[in-house]
Amino acid sequence: MDWQLPYETCLMKYGKKTEALFYAMRDSIMNGTVPPGSRLPSTRALAAQYGLSRGTVNTVYEMLQAQGYVQAIPSRGTVAVHTGGNPRSALPDGEGETLSAWGERVRALPAVNNSSGPPSAIRADGRSPLREPAEREPGVIDFSPGRVDLRRFPVKEWNRLLYAQVRGQYRSARADIHAAEGHAPLREGIARHLRRVRGLAAEPDDIVIVGGSHQALVLLIQLILNPGEPAVVENPGYEGTVRAVQAAGGMVVPCPVDRHGLVTDALPESARLIAVTPGRQFPTGAVMPLERRLRLLEYAERHRSFVIEDDYDSEFRFRGRPIEPLMTLDRSGRVVFVGTFSRTMMHDLRLGYAVLPPGLKEAFRKAKQLYEPHPTAILEQRALAAFLNGGGYERHLRRMRRRYMRLSERMENLLRERAGRALFVHPNDAGLYVYAEWLGSGEAFDRFLAACAGRRLVVRDLRQTYVGRAKPAVALGFAHLEEDEMEEGVARLAAAAEDVLTEDG
Amino acid sequence: MDWQLPYETCLMKYGKKTEALFYAMRDSIMNGTVPPGSRLPSTRALAAQYGLSRGTVNTVYEMLQAQGYVQAIPSRGTVAVHTGGNPRSALPDGEGETLSAWGERVRALPAVNNSSGPPSAIRADGRSPLREPAEREPGVIDFSPGRVDLRRFPVKEWNRLLYAQVRGQYRSARADIHAAEGHAPLREGIARHLRRVRGLAAEPDDIVIVGGSHQALVLLIQLILNPGEPAVVENPGYEGTVRAVQAAGGMVVPCPVDRHGLVTDALPESARLIAVTPGRQFPTGAVMPLERRLRLLEYAERHRSFVIEDDYDSEFRFRGRPIEPLMTLDRSGRVVFVGTFSRTMMHDLRLGYAVLPPGLKEAFRKAKQLYEPHPTAILEQRALAAFLNGGGYERHLRRMRRRYMRLSERMENLLRERAGRALFVHPNDAGLYVYAEWLGSGEAFDRFLAACAGRRLVVRDLRQTYVGRAKPAVALGFAHLEEDEMEEGVARLAAAAEDVLTEDG
Repeated sequence: MDWQLPYETCLMKYGKKTEALFYAMRDSIMNGTVPPGSRLPSTRALAAQYGLSRGTVNTVYEMLQAQGYVQAIPSRGTVAVHTGGNPRSALPDGEGETLSAWGERVRALPAVNNSSGPPSAIRADGRSPLREPAEREPGVIDFSPGRVDLRRFPVKEWNRLLYAQVRGQYRSARADIHAAEGHAPLREGIARHLRRVRGLAAEPDDIVIVGGSHQALVLLIQLILNPGEPAVVENPGYEGTVRAVQAAGGMVVPCPVDRHGLVTDALPESARLIAVTPGRQFPTGAVMPLERRLRLLEYAERHRSFVIEDDYDSEFRFRGRPIEPLMTLDRSGRVVFVGTFSRTMMHDLRLGYAVLPPGLKEAFRKAKQLYEPHPTAILEQRALAAFLNGGGYERHLRRMRRRYMRLSERMENLLRERAGRALFVHPNDAGLYVYAEWLGSGEAFDRFLAACAGRRLVVRDLRQTYVGRAKPAVALGFAHLEEDEMEEGVARLAAAAEDVLTEDG
Repeated sequence: MDWQLPYETCLMKYGKKTEALFYAMRDSIMNGTVPPGSRLPSTRALAAQYGLSRGTVNTVYEMLQAQGYVQAIPSRGTVAVHTGGNPRSALPDGEGETLSAWGERVRALPAVNNSSGPPSAIRADGRSPLREPAEREPGVIDFSPGRVDLRRFPVKEWNRLLYAQVRGQYRSARADIHAAEGHAPLREGIARHLRRVRGLAAEPDDIVIVGGSHQALVLLIQLILNPGEPAVVENPGYEGTVRAVQAAGGMVVPCPVDRHGLVTDALPESARLIAVTPGRQFPTGAVMPLERRLRLLEYAERHRSFVIEDDYDSEFRFRGRPIEPLMTLDRSGRVVFVGTFSRTMMHDLRLGYAVLPPGLKEAFRKAKQLYEPHPTAILEQRALAAFLNGGGYERHLRRMRRRYMRLSERMENLLRERAGRALFVHPNDAGLYVYAEWLGSGEAFDRFLAACAGRRLVVRDLRQTYVGRAKPAVALGFAHLEEDEMEEGVARLAAAAEDVLTEDG
């Protein structure tokens, strides 16, 4: 049997003669070019054929033998034994694999769909994030909520801080201790910011940095909730919270929301956990008044429930009184405050934090440490610490607040003027999107969404934020748009609504 | 009642008059300076007192009332109602909180201790990472394993790549889709690298990027293992794996290790999961030969167990044949390969990956997405993709392999020469540390470690890598040391050993 080996190809690929010969022979055995049972050529012959030393060939034969591709058989010499094919190419599809109870729950998590067309929070295959592909197409106007204005981000200042960290990295990596709970100066900066701007008295030691606030929600729910235990979620509310409760095997107890946020009178008989967005309810934008806050805390105290306060979009408040976190009122350690920088700075900066009450501090730190004993994105943690502690962050917030306020007002007015017959626009006093309820039927709403897609608009169908019966409504993000884009977008939206209203006579 | 307010302080702190007055009044009410029941001054009086407009004072009164700090009482006017004290300052300590079963297991995770003094894998309080404080002191020589040579890292090249990503971030953040499984070009680069350098045929689609390889271990164990189910760990082995099994509530089944790695004949009757380091056993450095690999795979296939192949330290191989991952031999989809860049590049770069068999692919992706719907450290993911795809990574590996080989050989020889009476130095053919068994008693080993600490040496006591009865041994990391430091370190180590041997006469 003549061994025709892809030696030259392998030499180009691997550079070294020994490796090239080894892989050339191994590949030939594995892909069946050399059938099992074929005898190895003599070292002399092979060495001559490829201009190698006999020593090299010998080494390769030993390597092949050690790894079981060839075998010495007394009467026949050394022969190829590996029975053809790349073993991994013929793997079973794994459909039948059973996982842990948690694993099965995670595998069974429902895909989140958005009926308005291309955009979706999480695609049906469970593989894509919030950002939409449609937006990349020219002419598309994307009203996805949660996006921020990157064009007005202080790029130079931030880059300077990042560069400084990149430069300092090698020195400091030898000397610094990075605890799992995150870069200490960043936790100090957050504590100072919360105290100054939000009135929340938190110590750096109460704070753990996470890879996006969503991570904090999931870890908290996992820490608190046993399978079968009830967890109250807002209805409508953030789907990510529902998914996290489902992953933990908890019982999702949807609680209605009105224009004052969670209806505390509708809380169930008991609950281990209540996830709320009191500063700005997602998606309705309602602010929870003091009375309900106190009732919620009293409920949590009585039932020894934990309250997760998801402060996802309260940093930009345009009018009215400053809203303090629910946590400031908590006298019995029932509330965890979860904050994020992904909405105030940029979406790609996956940094958030949790402010923990005494009863969850140690456990949360250990949970974070379990998954990531060393903090991720330390480069960005350092830059963010410098941004916070140098005052750049608050300057940025102030600047953006003015712009977002102008955009928000303009958007509200335009919508009321142009689409007021079809949409009820809730007054918007904070945040990066406007909440608008559809005034027609659900069936007409479907046609409206189709008309929006037809007019190259991306709008977020909020029916997916409901558990059970859903009201038709949309969230219209404006923060990342220029004024003319926004105006053009609202014009198209109004036209889409008109189409539907005209059809219905 | 005269209201003496910290108005000036608050003005300095908050800048704006309205906020300053609001916080000055609120703080006075909350800290008891103004007792409950005190009537608010007239707006006219207060405005005059602080040089404010009456409108400003009115706004603040409304804010205070809306948030419940003051209340209008018919016969008495508007009075302070909040009963003193910062509620968060008097929180209960939370010791008695019950968490979920998982939460309780996580909270109860044993602290990992290192008896050799300051260094410890995870401190007793569960709050500190692997890096040691002691190393910062002058004169200390740190033999901690797992550290890398940052002085020879191609800093300029890497920084150039990072800068390019920082610059491109704002544009791309608008346009790119970052799936939870990680930056697509990075997954392609890893697939190519694994194929070229390690002989593992993986598709980018099989790969999920994680925040350090440890995260992959924990997610996998959680996906596979139900509470009570047996998981085989190497004994001695990586403590992080044991902790992850404990957190999942699994049954830790330690299986002995000899100079060929995991003793496959000692595998239990059944196991859901087997966590191994076949390329370079942690901590003994043993390489698992083909025969055992095949036996392990056969076992996994028969019992439908999953095998986690933790390839934590196999990229730098100094001599002998190239070791292919166990996964290359897997014909039935039982093996997950877990790799890392923290050891080949730098410790602070918390990027690792899992190569998944079909049966775990979807579930693992969803698990990763559950915690982090958007990938963290996308900046570093992009830079690493460019480093891999531009050839810089393999160049770096080749360069470092030569240096590490030289250091490793020198270290082995020095140790045998100088401390051969006290330590049995295992031949080291890969990786970043030398494994050495203590030849004396456990009690003498304690004295040896104390003597090392006294001579300002940080050495890793490997007894903590055992479940149950432990052999005294040390792992001596050399990768981050200069040759003269290493020589000085070995001299001190030999002197410490001599101290003990002399004492014992």
